[in-house]
Amino acid sequence: MAEQLLADYYGCDVQRLDDAKLLTQAAHEAVHAVGAQVVEECVHRFEPMGVSYIAVISTSHISIHTWPEYGYAAVDIFSCTQGIPQEVAQALGRTLGADTIRTKMIRRDVKGGTAIEI
Amino acid sequence: MAEQLLADYYGCDVQRLDDAKLLTQAAHEAVHAVGAQVVEECVHRFEPMGVSYIAVISTSHISIHTWPEYGYAAVDIFSCTQGIPQEVAQALGRTLGADTIRTKMIRRDVKGGTAIEI
Repeated sequence: MAEQLLADYYGCDVQRLDDAKLLTQAAHEAVHAVGAQVVEECVHRFEPMGVSYIAVISTSHISIHTWPEYGYAAVDIFSCTQGIPQEVAQALGRTLGADTIRTKMIRRDVKGGTAIEI
Repeated sequence: MAEQLLADYYGCDVQRLDDAKLLTQAAHEAVHAVGAQVVEECVHRFEPMGVSYIAVISTSHISIHTWPEYGYAAVDIFSCTQGIPQEVAQALGRTLGADTIRTKMIRRDVKGGTAIEI
């Protein structure tokens, strides 16, 4: 079973939400703090504002999409290791200066089908 | 309001699940078919098997994680444009040869906080 945490951050620091370099660094720090590694990453800044950061990490992925105009960020942390998503989400919330974080945990049933011998 | 579709694919073609090039091409075709574009992408093949593909697209992101050993793929399609996630999910299901697709739609309340004048 994999865990996927969907976290909505409200009331964030507007400047931070539009800073691709800061978001990349924050993702690295949060991922490393839980003993995972960033394997591949993409970051894109939209015009006139907003950043999307997505990374394959050693335990699955993290995505951050920001809407500075609403002080909002949508974060997903998908992990095969229990407990990691919550820790990463809390660390990112501190960096973003969020005043409210709403989370939803989804279980992905990786083994829900029929296992195949290969 | 943004839409996020979480789709679990079971009973997929094992060879296709482990083919990073095919998954990348399938993502491109599915994204282009709905009038969106891939802006940035990362793909990583894990050892001994499994692929993670994630991309920033013009309307947010798509991620595909595969577990060939279980015939399973976890797909997320996050979009600011309504209707796009379902179309992309169906196209990917055909490519993966899934016999069962379970989906869950999540609404992300982008404007749920206080809008900020900037």
